[in-house]
Amino acid sequence: MHRIPFDTIKARFTGILTKNGFSAEKAEHCARIFAENSLDGVYTHGLNRFPTFVSTIRDGLVDCDAEPVLDGNNGLIEQWDGKRGPGVLNAEICMNRAMSLAREHGIGCVALKNTNHWMRGGSYGWQAAEAGFIGICFTNTIANLPPWGGIDPRLGNNPLVIAVPRPGGHVVLDMAMSQFSFGKLMQYQSAGEELPVPGGYDQHGNLSTNAPDVISARRLLPIGFWKGSGLALMLDLLVTILSKGQSTKDISAKDKETGLSQVFICIRQDNPELNARLIEQILDYTKSSRPQDPGKAITYPGENTLRTRIRNMKEGILVDEGIWNEVLGM
Amino acid sequence: MHRIPFDTIKARFTGILTKNGFSAEKAEHCARIFAENSLDGVYTHGLNRFPTFVSTIRDGLVDCDAEPVLDGNNGLIEQWDGKRGPGVLNAEICMNRAMSLAREHGIGCVALKNTNHWMRGGSYGWQAAEAGFIGICFTNTIANLPPWGGIDPRLGNNPLVIAVPRPGGHVVLDMAMSQFSFGKLMQYQSAGEELPVPGGYDQHGNLSTNAPDVISARRLLPIGFWKGSGLALMLDLLVTILSKGQSTKDISAKDKETGLSQVFICIRQDNPELNARLIEQILDYTKSSRPQDPGKAITYPGENTLRTRIRNMKEGILVDEGIWNEVLGM
Repeated sequence: MHRIPFDTIKARFTGILTKNGFSAEKAEHCARIFAENSLDGVYTHGLNRFPTFVSTIRDGLVDCDAEPVLDGNNGLIEQWDGKRGPGVLNAEICMNRAMSLAREHGIGCVALKNTNHWMRGGSYGWQAAEAGFIGICFTNTIANLPPWGGIDPRLGNNPLVIAVPRPGGHVVLDMAMSQFSFGKLMQYQSAGEELPVPGGYDQHGNLSTNAPDVISARRLLPIGFWKGSGLALMLDLLVTILSKGQSTKDISAKDKETGLSQVFICIRQDNPELNARLIEQILDYTKSSRPQDPGKAITYPGENTLRTRIRNMKEGILVDEGIWNEVLGM
Repeated sequence: MHRIPFDTIKARFTGILTKNGFSAEKAEHCARIFAENSLDGVYTHGLNRFPTFVSTIRDGLVDCDAEPVLDGNNGLIEQWDGKRGPGVLNAEICMNRAMSLAREHGIGCVALKNTNHWMRGGSYGWQAAEAGFIGICFTNTIANLPPWGGIDPRLGNNPLVIAVPRPGGHVVLDMAMSQFSFGKLMQYQSAGEELPVPGGYDQHGNLSTNAPDVISARRLLPIGFWKGSGLALMLDLLVTILSKGQSTKDISAKDKETGLSQVFICIRQDNPELNARLIEQILDYTKSSRPQDPGKAITYPGENTLRTRIRNMKEGILVDEGIWNEVLGM
C-alpha cells in the first residue's frame, strides 16, 4: 500500500473515461466522485471498483452518454428515468433536483428508475449536506441477502443514507442492510481475519465470524436479524412503487446488476443556526457515555470519514498497488 | 391467560379514561387504539401498558384535554405542538394531517413536538395504509441504548415505522433500534427463557442471550451493532431539528419520559393497481427463498399481525389475568 495524490488519481480516471466514450465534462465529473470515494476511505467503491465500472461501460450495461429525464410526477414527487446512464452521475443529478424542490417547497422527493450502481451512497448524502440540506436516499440492488428465515438471496442489501448538515463536519450515515458488504467480507477473507461480529451463517446454518464460510454459503446476515430483513424489503417496495422501476426481483433476473431504482429526499433547513446548536447538544450527549474501551472515543457517523479525508488529501490516498497498476495500464 | 372480546376491553378502557378526565369522544378514541394494539398481538403496548398510561395522566405528565396545534412550517413541512396531550391521539392526528398534505401535494410531512409516548408506532403505519397512503413515521424516546462503543445509555431506541398499503394485507414494518425492547426482555426474564439471538451485553462486556444479565447491565444491543446505533442517532437528529422539540438528551434530563418529538411522512399512491401488482411480485419473490426450517414460511412485515388480529377478533384477545384484573379494579 502506498499513497497517491487525489489529483493524480482523479486525472488518471478522467483520462480513462475519456478514452472510453465519456465527454470531457462527464469524465471529469465521474472521475471526481470515484476519486472522492477513495479520498474518504471508502476504497471498495472508489479506486477498487473503477476497473469494474469501466468494464460495465465496455459491456454496454452503462450508457455513458445517457442523461436522466423527467418521466412523470406524483404531485411534488418527481419520477425520473435514468436511461441506464452512469449511476454516479444520475444519482448526483437527482439529489440536486431534490434540493431544488426542497429549496422551493421545504421538502423534495425524486424517484429514479433505470439507473446503475451509485457506488458509495454516502456521496449523495455528503452532497446534500454540503449544500446545507438534510438528505435521505436509498437504492435497491441485485439479490444478495436471504430474507429472514430463508437461505436463498431474495433481498438486496439496499443501502440507506441519511445526512444532516453540520458546521463542524456533517453527520452522514451510509449503511447497507447486511452487517457487512460482500466487498468487506472479501477484504476479511483476503486478510485471513475473523469478522469482529457475526457476518452471516455457514452452510450448516450456524452464525459465523468466518468470512470464507459466509461467502461460500451465500448467507449474509441482515442487521438485527429479522429487522434488517424487513427494512431491506420495505426499501425495495418504496423505490419500486415510487419510481415504477425494477425491483430486486427484476434486477436479479439477469446475472449483471443494472437498471436499479432509487429515491432521493431533501429537506430545507428552516433555521440553520438553531439546528447547529441542537445537533451539537445531541452529539455531545451521545459522546458523554463512558467508552467500552478506555481511550477509544465514541464517534458519530461521518466523523471518521472526515478525518480520513483530511489525512488522505494531505498525505495522498492509500491505494492497493495491484489495482493502481491495473488502472495505470488501462 | 384467557381471552376477552375486543369490545369488552375497549369499553372497559373507555370507562376508565372517562373517569380520569377524558371527554367521551377522546376516551373512546384512545381506548380503541390501546385495544387495537392488544388485538394485533402487541400486548406490551396495549392492555399491558394501559395502567401505566393512566398513571401518567394522574401524575400530570399527560394532559388529556390538550390538542395539537399548528405551530409553524418549513415550506410544506408543518410543525405541530402536541401540548403534552395523549401521545396516541396526537400521533393519529398528525398522521391524518400528513395524509391531507399528501392528498394535495403527493407528499406530506408533519413534525410534532411536546408529545407523549405513542405506544405502538405501527398503529400510525396501519392508519396510513388503511387510508391508501404510504406512511413513514419515527419518534425519539428517553435514553435506553448505549451508543456503539459506549456503556451508558445515551440514545433512544427510536422506533421507525414504514407502511405500504396492499389489498391483501398491508406491509407494515415497526422496528425499534434495539434488538429487543425493554418490555420484550422483561417477558423473557419472567418466562425464564433464553433470547433467540444476543440482546445486549452483560456487565463484563460479553454479548449475551440472558435477559436478566442484559437488563442489569443496562446495555441493550442496537440492531446491527454500530449501524443501529448510528440510525438511532440520525432519527433523533431528524425529529429534533424538524420539530424544534426535545431531543433524547432533553427528555432524559427527567426521570419520566415526556415531551417527545416525532415525524410523520405520507405519500399518495399515483397508481394503486400497478403498485399492487409490483408489491405482489416483490413479496412472492421474497417468499420463494427456501426456508431455513422446512415447513416454516417466510413472512413479510405485518403478515403475522394481520393473522393475530383476525384470530383475536374471532376468539377474543389473550390477556394477562393479573393486568386484566388490575384494569377491572380501576
